[in-house]
This record gives sequence, structure tokens and C-alpha cells, in this order.
Amino acid sequence: MGEGAHQQVLKIVLIGAGNLATNLGRALLEAGYPISAVYSRTAESASRLAALLECPFTCSLDEVPEDAQLYIVSLKDSALPEVLPRLLTPKRREALWVHTAGSVPMDIWPAYGATRYGVLYPMQTFSKARAVNFAEIPVFLEASGCVEMKLLHRVAEALSHRVHEADSAQRKALHLAAVFVCNFTNAMYAAGARLLEDHGLDFGMMLPLIDETARKVHTLHPVEAQTGPAVRYDRGVMQSHLDALADYPLYREAYALVSRMIHEVYNTEEKSEL
Amino acid sequence: MGEGAHQQVLKIVLIGAGNLATNLGRALLEAGYPISAVYSRTAESASRLAALLECPFTCSLDEVPEDAQLYIVSLKDSALPEVLPRLLTPKRREALWVHTAGSVPMDIWPAYGATRYGVLYPMQTFSKARAVNFAEIPVFLEASGCVEMKLLHRVAEALSHRVHEADSAQRKALHLAAVFVCNFTNAMYAAGARLLEDHGLDFGMMLPLIDETARKVHTLHPVEAQTGPAVRYDRGVMQSHLDALADYPLYREAYALVSRMIHEVYNTEEKSEL
Repeated sequence: MGEGAHQQVLKIVLIGAGNLATNLGRALLEAGYPISAVYSRTAESASRLAALLECPFTCSLDEVPEDAQLYIVSLKDSALPEVLPRLLTPKRREALWVHTAGSVPMDIWPAYGATRYGVLYPMQTFSKARAVNFAEIPVFLEASGCVEMKLLHRVAEALSHRVHEADSAQRKALHLAAVFVCNFTNAMYAAGARLLEDHGLDFGMMLPLIDETARKVHTLHPVEAQTGPAVRYDRGVMQSHLDALADYPLYREAYALVSRMIHEVYNTEEKSEL
Repeated sequence: MGEGAHQQVLKIVLIGAGNLATNLGRALLEAGYPISAVYSRTAESASRLAALLECPFTCSLDEVPEDAQLYIVSLKDSALPEVLPRLLTPKRREALWVHTAGSVPMDIWPAYGATRYGVLYPMQTFSKARAVNFAEIPVFLEASGCVEMKLLHRVAEALSHRVHEADSAQRKALHLAAVFVCNFTNAMYAAGARLLEDHGLDFGMMLPLIDETARKVHTLHPVEAQTGPAVRYDRGVMQSHLDALADYPLYREAYALVSRMIHEVYNTEEKSEL
């Protein structure tokens, strides 16, 4: 009964149709919060997401509905300064405005005229091709006031059972750490894949190792979990690997640098030998 | 019945007591291949592993049994040139000698006088504190001849159901790829942990993201799975992250370099803007 009431009163508009907007829109719909309309700069992505969410779409900022209670802005951070001034017309300023970006502070909002605002940051790696289980995703909230925070909690807790509050500085640290543990980790996977494929070997053989590497840090701190030539400071292996990377200049640079990162944590006593 | 016969005829000596030797010895014992003796340079690690494997140990190369059929050498690669000449006495040369190193070619063996030799390389991240399920670990074999390969298959298949043959060049590529997807990935986890802990945040919050990042590449190629500011080439976010890393010079360098690695794969058309 309560849920039914929420669904009627909360009119949500989604600004953006990228990976995060797609996964968030889908999760909101499944949680009983249908989206009233989708805006995207291109008709193709707007219509694709609108079809998925069974709602209208627009590619014109002027046509974005003016009567929503919650606007969720999920755009590339660099698009915000261009788009927000055109969205926050006097009529729309009464609504609650949130963005979903890890590294954009909450206090951008007043500059655009918003009076009720916040952040709903789901910390996960989203690809359009892959549906994720939103219930497990940590969601970090920040809001301009109590009423706004309460509404965001209600929405976020319908999506996930890992809802936390975090101020802008904490959220930025979380996002930066997420870039390392997710985006940069995936870049390491991509490097491994290319090195194998160039030798006619299948990346799939790495999956048991990838899984164990991830599982391990559930029980050991990453500093305890570290293995490999750099932590043993096995110069022979490291040099032979650097030699093998002669045709991969960026990977070679990464090998040397990440080995230094590892070495700095462990073998401080050998530093003078470097 | 067959297994019982193997256990009686195959006398195995383990040279080394590090993470890999510990996990391999434990897995061999569980698979019905008890270890006859353990050698390690230090009494402490030799006795610790010998206790685990319920076998004698020695810290003296001269006291290593001379009548084993299989010697498994699992030492830091740089220790091999010092240790192997002292082990491969005429009496011990009749045995099968294998090492477990990804990046050491098989053809080191004849130089030390071995006539029957090979490699048994389990590709996994081993920490003493954590028992791994050896059955899932890819094991790569190389051998000097058919008879030797057959024996290594028998032993390896008792340990794992992912046994492959790989020559020294392939094994080196596998090891190098493993350093990226495992050791360097863990270094990214460690960086994330430090960035969070320095802001009073708990690394445990990253686990759902870490798990999804690993799971994702079971169904998407890492190149398709990539997300984050570098693949979107979101300059504002990247610059604000670099600024936030002012006090972490190695992490700052890594951020710039890995972002270039990511960018090189995706946005080649924007390269001129770099």
C-alpha cells in the first residue's frame, strides 16, 4: 500500500541515457519507481532507454517535463555546465535535483539555482550490455536538507541494501579509489588479454587467477595479499619481463611503475639497491 | 589400486618452502602424493612446511635425499644458479627435475647436468595464509621427453582438472599476463585501500565493485568491459583526480599512465587533443 502511494506521488525524470542512467532507470522501474520521462542529447539513445523503461523521451531540453518531483542527472561530468542552466528554469527549481557523479561536489547545485538538491552515487561499473544486481551496490547519498535526505534514502533503499551517507570529500575519495580498483584493474585485464592473444593464447585461462585475486581481498588486506616478482624483488624475472615488453611501450612503462608501487610498500630496506 | 601403487613408487622431494611450495606440497599430499622431504635455506621455513606435510626436512643441500624420482624446485628464480649446481650431483641426475617458475625456460636444466627434466607451472596467486582450491588452478607442463611428460601429466592431473602443455615462450607470456591481471590488479586494490583509509573510509566497501569487475570479464572481453573517466575521456574528472593525488606521487603517475593505456585503446580519434 505504502509503495503504491510512493509510485503515484513521485514523478521522476532521468536526464541522460548512458550506462549508469540505463542501469539506474532499470533498477528504479523494478523497485516500483517508474521513470516519467528520459532526456538524452541523441534521439537514438533516448529512444532506446525510453523503450526499456516504457516511458516517453525527448532530445530537447525545453521539452523535459516541468512537473517532476525528482530529476536525476546522469551525464558525463563535463556536460553539466552546458545542460544544467537550461534545465533549471524557475518552474523546475522547486523539484529535488540530484546527480550521480562520484567526483562532482554537491555544491554545484545552488549555482544553477536549485534550492533542494543532493547526490545519489551508486559505486559500480556499469555497461549497457550487462544487467547488474543493484541490491548489492553501495549507494552514497548527500542532500541539502533533512527532507531531501529522507526522500533519497527512501528511493535508494528500494534499490540497494547498502545505502550510506557520504559528504563530497568522502565521495571523491571513494570515486578515486573506485577508479583504481575497478577501471585500472580492468585495464590490467585488458593488457593481459592482449599479451596472451598476441601469443595465440586464450584470455579465458586467466579467469581462475582473476577470481582468486578478487576473492583473496575479502579475507586478506591487499597489502598482505600481494604476490609476484615485484614483491619478491626478483630482478631476473622483472628484467626478462621488461625485455619481453619491448614492443609494448605503455605496458613496459606500466610494468616498471606498478612494480615500484609494489616495491615501495614492501622492501623498503632494499631501496638503496634500486 | 593404481593410486596406491603410484604413492609407493613416486618419491618426491620439494626444494623450497615459499608460498608456492607450501600450497603445492599441501595439494600433492591431499592428492595422494606425499612429499618425502623438504629442503629450505632456513630451518624455520623448512620445519614449518615439513610439519604441515608430515615429512623430514633439511637446510643442507648435501643432505637432500639422493634416491627420489621427482625433484620439484620451487625457489625464487634468482636462487636457481646458486642452488642447482649443488643439487644435481651425479647420483641425483637420474631423477626427473622440474621447476615451477613461469618465466624460467625449460632449457636451463641440461646446463646443470639434468637429463630428464621439465616444468610444472601452476598459474595462481599463492599466500601461505590462504589455502586455495588447487583443482581449479591451470597447470602448464613442459617436459624433455614423452616419458617425463606422461609422469608430469599423472601428477598434475591428480592436482587439477585444468592441465595444459605450454612451451617456454607461451609460459613466459602466461606469466607476464598473470603479473598484470593478478599482481598489478592487487597493487590497484592496495592503492584504493590506502586512498580510502587515509580518508577514514573502509576498504570493505570496495568489495562489491571488485567482485563485479572480475565477474564482468567472464562474459565481456576486458576491452568491452572498460568503464570510467579515462574511457569517456572526461578531462574534468581526470584533472580533479590528478589534483587529489598531489600527495601520492607514484599513484599520480600511475593514474596518468593507466589512463593513457585506456585512452589508447578507445578514443584514438581524440589523440590529437592530448
